[in-house]
Amino acid sequence: MRNLQHKLSVARGEQPAELLFKNARVVNVLSGEVHPANVAVDDGRVVGFGDYDAKRVVDLGGRFLAPSFIEGHFHVESTMLTIPELCRAVVPHGTGAMVIDPHEYANVLGLDGIRYVLESSRGLPIDFFIMLPSCVPATSLESAGARLTADDLRLMIRDERVAGIAELMNYPGVYLGWESELAKIEAGKGKAIDGHAPGLRGKNLNAYVLAGVRSDHESTELDEAREKLRLGMHVLLREGSTERNLEHLAPLVTPANASNCSFATDDKLASDLVREGHLDHSVRKAIQHGVPPITALQMATINPARHYRLRNFGAIAPRFWADFVVFEDLENIQVQQTWKRGELIAQDGKFLGALPPVVPLPRSTMNLRYTPAQLDVPAIGAGAIKVIDLVVNQIVTRKALLPPKIVKGCVVADPSRDILKLVVVERHRATGNVGVGFVRGFKLRKGALASTVAHDAHNVVVVGVSDEDILTAIAALVKMQGGIVAVADGQVQAALALPIAGLVSDQPLDRVMQDVSALDAAAHALGCDLPAPFMSLSFVSLSPIPELKLTDQGLIDAVKMEVTPLFT
Amino acid sequence: MRNLQHKLSVARGEQPAELLFKNARVVNVLSGEVHPANVAVDDGRVVGFGDYDAKRVVDLGGRFLAPSFIEGHFHVESTMLTIPELCRAVVPHGTGAMVIDPHEYANVLGLDGIRYVLESSRGLPIDFFIMLPSCVPATSLESAGARLTADDLRLMIRDERVAGIAELMNYPGVYLGWESELAKIEAGKGKAIDGHAPGLRGKNLNAYVLAGVRSDHESTELDEAREKLRLGMHVLLREGSTERNLEHLAPLVTPANASNCSFATDDKLASDLVREGHLDHSVRKAIQHGVPPITALQMATINPARHYRLRNFGAIAPRFWADFVVFEDLENIQVQQTWKRGELIAQDGKFLGALPPVVPLPRSTMNLRYTPAQLDVPAIGAGAIKVIDLVVNQIVTRKALLPPKIVKGCVVADPSRDILKLVVVERHRATGNVGVGFVRGFKLRKGALASTVAHDAHNVVVVGVSDEDILTAIAALVKMQGGIVAVADGQVQAALALPIAGLVSDQPLDRVMQDVSALDAAAHALGCDLPAPFMSLSFVSLSPIPELKLTDQGLIDAVKMEVTPLFT
Repeated sequence: MRNLQHKLSVARGEQPAELLFKNARVVNVLSGEVHPANVAVDDGRVVGFGDYDAKRVVDLGGRFLAPSFIEGHFHVESTMLTIPELCRAVVPHGTGAMVIDPHEYANVLGLDGIRYVLESSRGLPIDFFIMLPSCVPATSLESAGARLTADDLRLMIRDERVAGIAELMNYPGVYLGWESELAKIEAGKGKAIDGHAPGLRGKNLNAYVLAGVRSDHESTELDEAREKLRLGMHVLLREGSTERNLEHLAPLVTPANASNCSFATDDKLASDLVREGHLDHSVRKAIQHGVPPITALQMATINPARHYRLRNFGAIAPRFWADFVVFEDLENIQVQQTWKRGELIAQDGKFLGALPPVVPLPRSTMNLRYTPAQLDVPAIGAGAIKVIDLVVNQIVTRKALLPPKIVKGCVVADPSRDILKLVVVERHRATGNVGVGFVRGFKLRKGALASTVAHDAHNVVVVGVSDEDILTAIAALVKMQGGIVAVADGQVQAALALPIAGLVSDQPLDRVMQDVSALDAAAHALGCDLPAPFMSLSFVSLSPIPELKLTDQGLIDAVKMEVTPLFT
Repeated sequence: MRNLQHKLSVARGEQPAELLFKNARVVNVLSGEVHPANVAVDDGRVVGFGDYDAKRVVDLGGRFLAPSFIEGHFHVESTMLTIPELCRAVVPHGTGAMVIDPHEYANVLGLDGIRYVLESSRGLPIDFFIMLPSCVPATSLESAGARLTADDLRLMIRDERVAGIAELMNYPGVYLGWESELAKIEAGKGKAIDGHAPGLRGKNLNAYVLAGVRSDHESTELDEAREKLRLGMHVLLREGSTERNLEHLAPLVTPANASNCSFATDDKLASDLVREGHLDHSVRKAIQHGVPPITALQMATINPARHYRLRNFGAIAPRFWADFVVFEDLENIQVQQTWKRGELIAQDGKFLGALPPVVPLPRSTMNLRYTPAQLDVPAIGAGAIKVIDLVVNQIVTRKALLPPKIVKGCVVADPSRDILKLVVVERHRATGNVGVGFVRGFKLRKGALASTVAHDAHNVVVVGVSDEDILTAIAALVKMQGGIVAVADGQVQAALALPIAGLVSDQPLDRVMQDVSALDAAAHALGCDLPAPFMSLSFVSLSPIPELKLTDQGLIDAVKMEVTPLFT
């Protein structure tokens, strides 16, 4: 970077700028208007509006020039892509900066996982800012790879790319004033403190905010979002692969309160990002549902930049990074070009930038210890068993009480009634923990599906008809050092290796999308009719979410928050 | 202050709140709306909205409850009041926090002056935040009491009540990239950096902003203010005693850009504050000129709080200080009550709080060395003399070339042509510097007017008909340890002692207002017809302002920025 004196002389017009965008219609998110301007850029930054000489001129011919988009809350692991490959997916959609919460990396690898994310997200075509995961592990009823306390968070909070403390999901712990949770908020003092309080209202919400939580992205009801906004929370309107709250919440936003609103994607599959879009999709949808275009663009740019204190991001004005998008229609924004620090990095949907090689993860995260006999379920009880009953497209489950099928003194799967065996094997520290239960909803007629993506502890989770296929699936995952697999008749039908923490592929975007499609096809060929079989599988171990779950510690009554026996 | 755990239990409704405001119409500057609510307060803070039990209930009966007002840029010295007495003047008008720039204290006392302001503004019914003066002295052509460099500013910038670097008035120095000025901006990194760039436009304004300046309060033209807003400056709409830009700039503000706009008063006389109002006047005037009431109230509350990073100020929501105003009519806001941290401190125009005793200034600031002979002006030239020609209600002056009246070989005053003698005596370090010149516009028929308030160096400035009265006036100022005086016939006609730095009275508000009135009356009785004789006198030494000025160093050509001889 050349120095400020040089840029000042360019701004004064004494030397030519590197680059001039001529005949732009600038979306000025600061003055809240569109105005014509020529925008001079030097050394990666905007230096001024005006009639400047430049070494290179880009004539926009009246097209719109807006700041590139900023993500407010995202889990990169949900794409199963390395962070560079994520750039390939979203840069053509105009994404310029992302605030990410490496919650899954942290559950598997603790501080090492956060350091890996910091390292592998450096120097890319998107600027990444990291929120420190605040709830690792999710509960004591699942065995994650790490435990993070306020002391751990304090070790990393001063990093200039750390923007604050990530979603405080233990919201009762916060509003009840648990010292462990208040200490995490205190650790983030002076930076952003993100919340996560689905459905929380009234006095307990008052206390949650009073404790220092400054944002929320979990509102599903308009009244809920309005209450949070009134209490001073920055409200992130979420639009992900499955959680889609934007249409419902759009009426909340007015020009008079929009500075307290931004967009979040939270979790979105790579294929959805590529096909549907990222924040460009949120902007389009907000405009379709009545948010004025300038307001929607403020929510995608300057508002998250200010909330997360991302210096010199989110606007087109002197000192700001020359991170732009170019488009033709303000009412239906389709990004034609994405610019980063004055370089064209995507054009007409094509990523043009260079990406660094994959940063290898320093260690294996597959440390299993189990024996086939641990899969046996002795029929020691009488009467019904508690079966996890899936709810399509939701992460909550129900509890079904059903008569077991018993063979040779053991409870076994009964595909004729869609009762399949579910197994969770601890994979972080070779504890030998194995949980076994039963689940209804996958409808496999044979074979097994398995994954090392299993929120939040990310142990090995397998659903299957026979113990043989379940064991084959586990062995395949071990061999791949983590991943997702469909097996049948003792053979792998489809697989995606996720050698990075058992969460992320080391392969390029296209390959990952192909493999995910093949996995879904294989699951469907085995009889499963869920829209996203492996996503459903990844949530059956998430112990804090009602009603019945299975972790490596056993069957979990997620209402009473305790281990519960299989038999009633 | 009791601890967070207690407040959390109050918020959860487990213990009664100290105070509940029932049946309020809350002006919610965060959600940009008015909504009914009961507001619970404990330990000086808002803990929540809702149906709370409380030890004390204030039924507002549907009246409006808004956050108290926040001043964006103010020089306390312009009131000639101690900071506690300033509170007495403005708290009844709803002021709850002020960002102040102790520019005059700093010119007289340097860092000691800033420390005095920090000390004497502590624990008052208004929260004061200090910007560190960035241009002391104004130029090298006047001898101030101190010189502040970036190193000096760095010594104080970390104080939690220091909000940043005050107006960078040397705007050419900034846009030209002088290292001395860039170093001051660098010293304030992470805090607010205030600008001052009257009339600056185009490429030089681009460079001024690029250098890191983040606000401006000097716009007088709408286009100028719009350009600054587009470039990312926080625009403060100024409404003081003489600089009144609000009506002209009000059309700039829309709900889509108002988060980048606030109010500033800059300089306002005590009597104007008492009679006309403070920020309440700005809010009323903005509304009268078309700004929506909620938007105007955001500009007076949350916007300056965010711009200057005043934590927990500027809104009514959990964690925010319980600093409120109560009023009945949203379109014509007349403050009925002012609350500070849950205490009623003003009601129906009456200040109810307690004020601490005056903090004495540790040292005298009147160190003069002069002889009567220094007032003689030998008629050494031929032809005309350069006379400072006042422009009513402006701080610029013109240069008049007029034939001198010569008596016994010396140029003397000629009241028949309104040509009076002007004298500036250095008062900080007993340098013996005395400047003598002539001025037209005061119209004194006899006597002299003198002051130690004389921007920016605040030396002794005297205008008079005879050397005898000029010397009498200087002697009176020395005796009072600084102040303002009108003399005639060898007698003091009216006086206001300003023993605190020669700038500020140690007397109560009412007494200061009376003395100022008496001084104006005395000046008018001597023939002066200026609306504010002593304010005009206080600007004739301000060397950076064109066209002709007089400092202790002599007659100043303020266009060429050099000392100039009296005779043409």
